[in-house]
Formats: sequence, structure tokens, C-alpha cells
Amino acid sequence: MDKIKQLIAGIKPLDEKAMVEARKRQDSLTKPRGSLGQLESLSIQIAGIRGNPRPQIVHKVIFTLAGDHGITQEGVSAYPSEVTPQMVYNFLRGGAGINVLARHVRARVVVADLGVASVLKRHPDLKDKKVAMGTQNMAEEPAMSREQAIRSIEAGIELVEDELPKGIDILGTGDMGIGNTTPASAITAVLTGADIATVTGMGTGLDVEGWRRKVKIIQKALEINQPNQNDAIDVLSKVGGFEIGGVAGVILAGAKYQIPVVMDGFISGAGALIATGLSPLVKPYLIASHQSVEKGHRVLLEYLGLKPLLNLDLRLGEGTGAALGIFLVEASLKILDEMATFSEAGVSEKI
Amino acid sequence: MDKIKQLIAGIKPLDEKAMVEARKRQDSLTKPRGSLGQLESLSIQIAGIRGNPRPQIVHKVIFTLAGDHGITQEGVSAYPSEVTPQMVYNFLRGGAGINVLARHVRARVVVADLGVASVLKRHPDLKDKKVAMGTQNMAEEPAMSREQAIRSIEAGIELVEDELPKGIDILGTGDMGIGNTTPASAITAVLTGADIATVTGMGTGLDVEGWRRKVKIIQKALEINQPNQNDAIDVLSKVGGFEIGGVAGVILAGAKYQIPVVMDGFISGAGALIATGLSPLVKPYLIASHQSVEKGHRVLLEYLGLKPLLNLDLRLGEGTGAALGIFLVEASLKILDEMATFSEAGVSEKI
Repeated sequence: MDKIKQLIAGIKPLDEKAMVEARKRQDSLTKPRGSLGQLESLSIQIAGIRGNPRPQIVHKVIFTLAGDHGITQEGVSAYPSEVTPQMVYNFLRGGAGINVLARHVRARVVVADLGVASVLKRHPDLKDKKVAMGTQNMAEEPAMSREQAIRSIEAGIELVEDELPKGIDILGTGDMGIGNTTPASAITAVLTGADIATVTGMGTGLDVEGWRRKVKIIQKALEINQPNQNDAIDVLSKVGGFEIGGVAGVILAGAKYQIPVVMDGFISGAGALIATGLSPLVKPYLIASHQSVEKGHRVLLEYLGLKPLLNLDLRLGEGTGAALGIFLVEASLKILDEMATFSEAGVSEKI
Repeated sequence: MDKIKQLIAGIKPLDEKAMVEARKRQDSLTKPRGSLGQLESLSIQIAGIRGNPRPQIVHKVIFTLAGDHGITQEGVSAYPSEVTPQMVYNFLRGGAGINVLARHVRARVVVADLGVASVLKRHPDLKDKKVAMGTQNMAEEPAMSREQAIRSIEAGIELVEDELPKGIDILGTGDMGIGNTTPASAITAVLTGADIATVTGMGTGLDVEGWRRKVKIIQKALEINQPNQNDAIDVLSKVGGFEIGGVAGVILAGAKYQIPVVMDGFISGAGALIATGLSPLVKPYLIASHQSVEKGHRVLLEYLGLKPLLNLDLRLGEGTGAALGIFLVEASLKILDEMATFSEAGVSEKI
């Protein structure tokens, strides 16, 4: 926990001076003020995060973290748990959605095992951060111990720190874990205070009956475990997942190292709830890439005060939405950097 | 008009066979069915447009068409008309928003003068398709003659046909014209049947009083000119603009040559209303890149049955939203082409 505390102590508010300068430059560019909407505000946010009024993005990294969930024993997912390791191998071969979209935006993908419930074959591109062979069934006992929760967050921090020497100007979060919308819904219910049914969706393919069962199971998990909403580590340990803890660690490290954090969908959002529960200073470092189909995601984004950039009915995870979001952030910074000013272009200003 | 009629006669429905094959491939890829939402449906639409179940995009072209508007005499814009030619020069020097975003997505920008109210300096990259030195003041008389309306549409068609030898796999529409949200609102009111106030926005920077004046002026223009809502050419000539007619021509040509058409915002949408008024077969070729701040845009997209990909509070025009939309269409086709199938990757399917 010392590692996490020390890191959190180093998180600073955004650089106001850089933001004022970036705003000034945006207002001098050859377009009506504000006419590029969120592309303008994004560029100013990134200026504040980087402490640079005209930041550049070269190195882009998406962290795709995998873990398994004991709760799948309750039949909360339409896919078997064996899909988690199968998809990890798919990531490593470059055949998954995240690989395609990361290539499209020229981002590196860091694939890590945070807690897959099988022994994965070694691979030069697979980061081994396994905390345990999947979580326990949270409908019967805590998903993990407090120590394991802390370890999963530390693992996320280490993943970012390991990549720093290669360069990270922006990072995206991603996840893979059959059954992980169930812990994400549980975390969202506890930390936002919303009804369980309001934050529980269909996952990757439940029917209405399956959905009802999922809501009941989350209810049971919260009753049995009594997570303390004022203690994010407690919530993570009782009803979380290792990859969700990992995402929280990645986000905390992003904030500490002044790297913009582009969140993927619902699972990443649950990680963000844990991270902001540990330090509210993390919030201004976050960018919501998209509005997921999972209904808890909307609740969570409203709670965090974030407006998603895209609404494409995505619900794949892996970091796919984050990849598209990174492209939009880059667009915003190129606007800030490359557009001509009114005086450079000899264009008349407002009457 | 013969040129337009002949072109329209050549517009075909989308290729169902290619769409069925693309859908089949999407469903075989390593993700839950439908989990990439609009990225999936987009790829299938493009397959149908191109008549190819696995289409590729290499050549991307954005058409940015400029024109001036007599209606600016009524004080409907916060910027002077001289900004139109100034911005054309900015486009040609590469300093405008559209240049930055087109470079970001590796698209060519074709800049054309459809009816700027001044004599523009010749430039190798400026297409001279000037119909007249700006439109007339539609609050007093028709914006243009019927012949001029036809000529502006033909000019748009020619611009696309001129680019065909260099290759166009996807095209975006864009506009520049001080005052052109006024004709766009007038066209939208006539062709969708909506209230004028419902489809009239703040343009590039009006206050509430300016907005009221704008609504009244559009009312007057419709009363004086009595555009026939069953005759799109009549509507364009009475209350349109040359760049809007040009956009309609670009869209018609896109449909004819089986090129996906990524629309920018409100002005492009008005062009799409003219194009679909001439031939409803154009509709499935259209992709709405974004939801503009201009409130008439929402009405128009609903009328056309289009769901915008982005909602970033953009209101610049030029084709900036279309550039971002082109990137998302490319992402959808890369997903379709590059992802591994369940059997290739050895991943288990749904239980």
C-alpha cells in the first residue's frame, strides 16, 4: 500500500498556466471561437495535463489487462471462462479488435495477465502480473483479499512505469475478462450509490431472465460482503476483479506521470471509480472515449462528470473505444498546433 | 438538367449480396456479435455501396465548396462576407481546420469556388466552378435562377468526375460561405416541413436578437419566393446557395459512382436534402459524420433517417466533421478485413 500512497501523493492538479495559454491560442485560430467544440476543450485539457501549452503526441500505449472471475460459476455470462485465455493469445497474435484499431491509430498494445484462471504460455509480449488464478465467487465470499486488491493496483502502476522509458504521451485503458460486467456493475452500484438494476446491463449477450439472475447475484454479493463505499480498496477486494484493480493502477500512474488517460468503456470506468475513490485529483486526467451500451456506464460517467466523445453502441472492451478516442485527442492537438491564426492568414475577425 | 437526369438514372440500390457476405464475416470475427455496434453496420453499408464484401479504402477526398450569400445584407451573420475568400486562401495555404484534419486522416482536399462574391486569384489547387458572384438576397427575390441552380449541381458532379481518375474510395462533403446557415435553415424548413424557428440556430455567433431577426428573414424569404417543396431544384434556386447546390451534386455523383458519402454538418445536410429530393435512391449512400450544434441539423438527420457517428459540438463546417467520420469508416473496414475469425483464432463461441 506504501507504493500506492506514495504515488498518489505525487498527483498534482492540472497546469492552469498552460491551459490559459492553450485557450488563448485556440481563440486566435481561423475559426469562430468554440466552433470545434470538444476538440477545443480536449486540447486545453491535454495542455493542462502535460504542463505544455502546445503538447505533441508521439507515443501512444493501450493497456489491455486480463482477468477471470469466480462469479462466472453463477452463469452470469453467455461465454465460457476459457475465452479469456483464448482471447489473450488472440491479442498476442494481433487478431483481435484492439489490435486492428491500435494499428489504425499507431498505438502500442501492452497485454498483461492480471489474474487469468489458467497458466498462460510464456510470450515475449505478455506481461505476467498474475495476482491469482481468477477471483473467488463474490456471491459466496470476497472476490479477493485486501492484499490481492492492493497487489492488482500496484501491478497496473508497474505496467505504466515499465513503459515510461519507451515513451508514453497518451494512454488508453482496456480489459478482457469473461464475466467482468458483473463486478463492474457491483462496483458502480456501491461507489455511485445507484440502484443495482440501474447499473446492470446485458453483458456480452444475456437474455432478460439471465439479466434478472445477474441483478440478484450482485444483490447477494453486496449483502454477503458489505463493501465499505468510503474505502475503494475494500470495494475492489469484496466485489472487484484483478483487471479492474489493474486499470485503477494504470489510471493512477497516468495521473502521477502527467499522461492523459483515455478510458475505454464500462470495465475501465469501474477501474476509474476505484482510482478516483483513492484520489479525486485523478479526475481531470480522465477522458471518456465512448458511451458504452452497458447501462451502468452512463451512470458512472455522469457520476465522474465526464462527457463521452463517441456513441457508437460499442460493448467489446479490450480498449477498442479508447483507441478511437486517442485518435480524436490527437486531432484536437493537431488543430491547436497546426492551424493558422487570424493574423497569420489575414482573415477578418468577428464584426 | 439532362446531365443531372442521366446521372440520377444510373444510381443503383446497394448490393445486397455483398452486404450479406460482409454480415456473415462480421459474425465470424472474434467478438460477441454486434459488440462493435456502428462500426459493424458501417462496414456492411460500405460493402453494399462498393459492391464488395471486403472493401478497402485507399483514396479519400474531401470536397470543400465555397459560395457567398446575398442574404448577408440583412445582417444574419456575425462575420463579414469578405471572410469567405479569405478562408479560401487559407484552405489553399493549408492553414484551416479542414487542412489539419484532412492531413490527420490522409485525405486530399478539393477546394472549389462555386460562387464566391469576389474574383479569386488563380491557384493550381483551386477549382473554378463559379456560377455567379454570390447569390441574390432571398429576402427580396430568388437567390438564383433555375439555370444557376442546375449549374451549381452540375458543377458538383464535375468536381467528383474530375477526381475519379486519381481514385476516390470515399468522399467527404464540406462548405465555406459566410451566412450559409440561413439558406440551410430555409431549405430544411421547406423540405422537412418543420417550423422555421425549430431549424434555425445561432450560426457562427449570433445573439438572441440576431437569431429572432434571422427567423423573420427566413419567413419573409419563404413568403416572397414560395418554393415548391416537391421540386428540389425550385427550392435550391429560391432559397439556396451555390455551394449547397454543389454539395448536392457531389452527393449525387458519389451515389452514381458507388462511393460512400460522408456528410459534414448542417450545410452539407441541406445539400443532402436537395440530392435526396432529386433521387431518394441516394439515401443509403449517406453517412452522417456528426451531430452539429446547429439545431436544424438534428431535424434534418431524423428526416433522412441517419444516426450521426460523432457528437462533439462542432459547428465549423469546411468538412471537418466529415474528415473525422472518414477515419471511423476506415476503422470499420479494417475491423471487417483484419480481425481473426473464431476458427482462425481457436476461440470458443457463445454457450
